[in-house]
Amino acid sequence: MSEAIERTIEWHESPDGAGGRGVVKMIDQRVLPHQVVVQSYTDYRDVAEAIRVMVIRGAPAIGAAAAFGMALAALQSRAADRLGLLRDLETAAAALRASRPTAVNLSWAIDRLLRAATDETLDPEGVDDVRDRLVREAQQLADEDVEINRRMAEHGATLIRDGDTILHHCNTGALATVDWGTALGAIRMAHLQGKRIHVLVDETRPRLQGARLTAWELMRWGVPMTLIADNAAGYYMRRGKVNLVMVGSDRTAANGDVANKIGTYKLAVLAKENGIPFYPVVPTSTIDLNLKNGDEIPIEERDEREVTEVDGVRVAPVGVQVGNPAFDVTPHRYVTGIVTENGIAYPPFELSLRQKVECGAQYAIRNT
Amino acid sequence: MSEAIERTIEWHESPDGAGGRGVVKMIDQRVLPHQVVVQSYTDYRDVAEAIRVMVIRGAPAIGAAAAFGMALAALQSRAADRLGLLRDLETAAAALRASRPTAVNLSWAIDRLLRAATDETLDPEGVDDVRDRLVREAQQLADEDVEINRRMAEHGATLIRDGDTILHHCNTGALATVDWGTALGAIRMAHLQGKRIHVLVDETRPRLQGARLTAWELMRWGVPMTLIADNAAGYYMRRGKVNLVMVGSDRTAANGDVANKIGTYKLAVLAKENGIPFYPVVPTSTIDLNLKNGDEIPIEERDEREVTEVDGVRVAPVGVQVGNPAFDVTPHRYVTGIVTENGIAYPPFELSLRQKVECGAQYAIRNT
Repeated sequence: MSEAIERTIEWHESPDGAGGRGVVKMIDQRVLPHQVVVQSYTDYRDVAEAIRVMVIRGAPAIGAAAAFGMALAALQSRAADRLGLLRDLETAAAALRASRPTAVNLSWAIDRLLRAATDETLDPEGVDDVRDRLVREAQQLADEDVEINRRMAEHGATLIRDGDTILHHCNTGALATVDWGTALGAIRMAHLQGKRIHVLVDETRPRLQGARLTAWELMRWGVPMTLIADNAAGYYMRRGKVNLVMVGSDRTAANGDVANKIGTYKLAVLAKENGIPFYPVVPTSTIDLNLKNGDEIPIEERDEREVTEVDGVRVAPVGVQVGNPAFDVTPHRYVTGIVTENGIAYPPFELSLRQKVECGAQYAIRNT
Repeated sequence: MSEAIERTIEWHESPDGAGGRGVVKMIDQRVLPHQVVVQSYTDYRDVAEAIRVMVIRGAPAIGAAAAFGMALAALQSRAADRLGLLRDLETAAAALRASRPTAVNLSWAIDRLLRAATDETLDPEGVDDVRDRLVREAQQLADEDVEINRRMAEHGATLIRDGDTILHHCNTGALATVDWGTALGAIRMAHLQGKRIHVLVDETRPRLQGARLTAWELMRWGVPMTLIADNAAGYYMRRGKVNLVMVGSDRTAANGDVANKIGTYKLAVLAKENGIPFYPVVPTSTIDLNLKNGDEIPIEERDEREVTEVDGVRVAPVGVQVGNPAFDVTPHRYVTGIVTENGIAYPPFELSLRQKVECGAQYAIRNT
């Protein structure tokens, strides 16, 4: 079924729904950009399966999916007492946790929902108020993700001037989060502010997240863009066609070294060589102050079929040896500044990143 | 039909052949690397069609194909006198010339064969000696291409040390020429000299010449190699895994600026940043001393489907805007040296390139 939804994943009230009064809807990312299919789930087991088969991907988006799965489980439960309901929630938690065992946000979100179910302020015997509380908690978790991304977008947008062309790598959009995204969120914000911008979207081999997801998101938002092969980035930079490079980061070290999708390092070197500012846009939750520098970050080597096949079509000789590192590390000397939800950190990053992270901790405390 | 041949394109004697006593055989590059199919032609019209549909590609290889096509036409002609034979040859020349109208080597080769047919040293009335002469001329043209490439390979191989890992871009192998190739020829020569080398082959989006052709050639030659996404080149360079970068060049300016396959500039910048030597390997015929610098070279913008589709499988949203420059220019300050068939030119290139080209002219005169 194809229908418009506002976010990557959403909770909808559904009084007449078969599985209770709630429906989880999410964009099916497996078929993008060719089809926009919205999947609807009223059973937590179907949500677990959706995470497993990657209908939804991206750590923050997966966390929200698991939270909504727990809310569905609370509505689905036929338990008449509190103990029975908690037992049903533990069953659902185990099923959801097993869907992508390595995703940190998944367990974090599930644990948060389980804590909410045993909140001491709730009637110790009641079941309906627990159901209400879990639906609210999941919605709040999703809303918080949107809020952090929106603040990153606002800070990032201050770097984008009217008339700028921004070069972007991989997918850092709403699809990887509940809404907005990181680097792509900043670009979207600048567009909504009325700035006339253009985005050079590199396709991001081997998994083509740029061609498949980022191009689709920008077209959907009406942001002018041009898709290019990764090899063409330097060509446009040297011709003076790029004003700014914006990327995400999976993990940032205390000194400002940035681990991100393979190919990021190349863009940073080319940007410096051509006098172009280079900004990662990252939530403070991905800044690891215990990591002195980026060389301590282990780099995942992924399946060679990502290089030898495109959508199942083989493009390289059978038996070829392949190297497929998923990430690279960009040393901080190539990084102009790092955008976070608490503002933009500039060198020396040892000081500025710590300040942004601690500022974030204070914000979290204020919200408790 | 699948069978082994030694070169990209070869002339075979065939006393019992349907079309005369000659057969042109060539590797069908359309189906590489999945199948190794050798096509055989005894009719010049089929050779023209093979060039048109890109059974064979690469300027030097196309030139040789056209020359062999002319030789076939001479054998096919039923003319009993010289005038009739020349008329048949002009008909064949027109058909071959039309197969890829923009290929310079094509017309150059056809003209050379037509000149040979009117050689004053031949019997003015005879036809059989003209037929013999055209077969010999085409074979000589192909042999000369091999010789130039072999000399480039020998000079290039002196730069490769035992134990080196060489990063290579696009396809510069035997497939683009009659045999050996340019940068890949140097790598093959080093391998044949017994040096233990390893080649990092970047896939070279958008047309994937690295994944499709270079990987296939190196595997065929038994040269140890690893296929990587273009995005991963910087990762390996920064980790100290690359000793040397070798590429081709479509056109080199008098100052040493190099126009080559899109993505070359990026490799040159990354090489310099990481202290790695960067060498284009080019025949002097592609050095344009009338071109002051590389910025005067017009850059071809190619079909956007090269970016949006892979083997007919669409990977980007329908309606997306695409930028697809086929080449980029690498300024000479990133170029360590330029390998030619007449030796290696080093900065200042204004002097050294002129010397290599003029040395080549002397060589050509000696051979006349």
